[in-house]
Amino acid sequence: MESQLKIIEPVHSENECSSALTAVGDALYAIGGKWKLRVIIALREGNKRFNELQRAITGISARVLSHELKELEMNGFVKRNVNIQVPVIVEYELTEYSDTLKDVLQALREWGLMHRDKIRRER
Amino acid sequence: MESQLKIIEPVHSENECSSALTAVGDALYAIGGKWKLRVIIALREGNKRFNELQRAITGISARVLSHELKELEMNGFVKRNVNIQVPVIVEYELTEYSDTLKDVLQALREWGLMHRDKIRRER
Repeated sequence: MESQLKIIEPVHSENECSSALTAVGDALYAIGGKWKLRVIIALREGNKRFNELQRAITGISARVLSHELKELEMNGFVKRNVNIQVPVIVEYELTEYSDTLKDVLQALREWGLMHRDKIRRER
Repeated sequence: MESQLKIIEPVHSENECSSALTAVGDALYAIGGKWKLRVIIALREGNKRFNELQRAITGISARVLSHELKELEMNGFVKRNVNIQVPVIVEYELTEYSDTLKDVLQALREWGLMHRDKIRRER
């Protein structure tokens, strides 16, 4: 009886697929786009001032960086610390919540390295 | 002696950070944006025709879906199968290479679920 007809299930059922779509959609809504994760990675090395961040992230304009930082702050990933001294120093810092992205960053990083290697080999 | 000065290292050195930035940048270049991963998830359930795909991915326009499919095909994630019969059936199918994204999708999915939960609790 054991060797009888086995129903082969697809990798994902329609329901699972739709819930995965929603969850990944939520994730991309919060951290998708060209820059957000890059800002977070640059800040993992240590707190940075606006100009330091802009130097660390090749290609980002001041206007876009400012916009991304505001969104990251609103969504609880980044804190803006203002040291009232002379001169005033504004530094950006990751929140604890941003640590929850560790696995996502790790997976993207490994995949990025693998993909770059593949593209290289194909040339 | 054991309790003496410990040098606390930052989570990432500058070099590591810059290589992570590049790798994640590469990843986002290939699969970033609002739709690419969603198209891939929708196809994990099984091959789909254009209209089926558009129904599965809420909010995507035909023009954008067509553009994303072309890019995914160019980058080796999706195959376009044309069955020459009457009527002609065009189906989209994931390549084996798209399986390499499994860990990225898994990490994004878990994070998306966790994040949605957090947002809900905060309301």
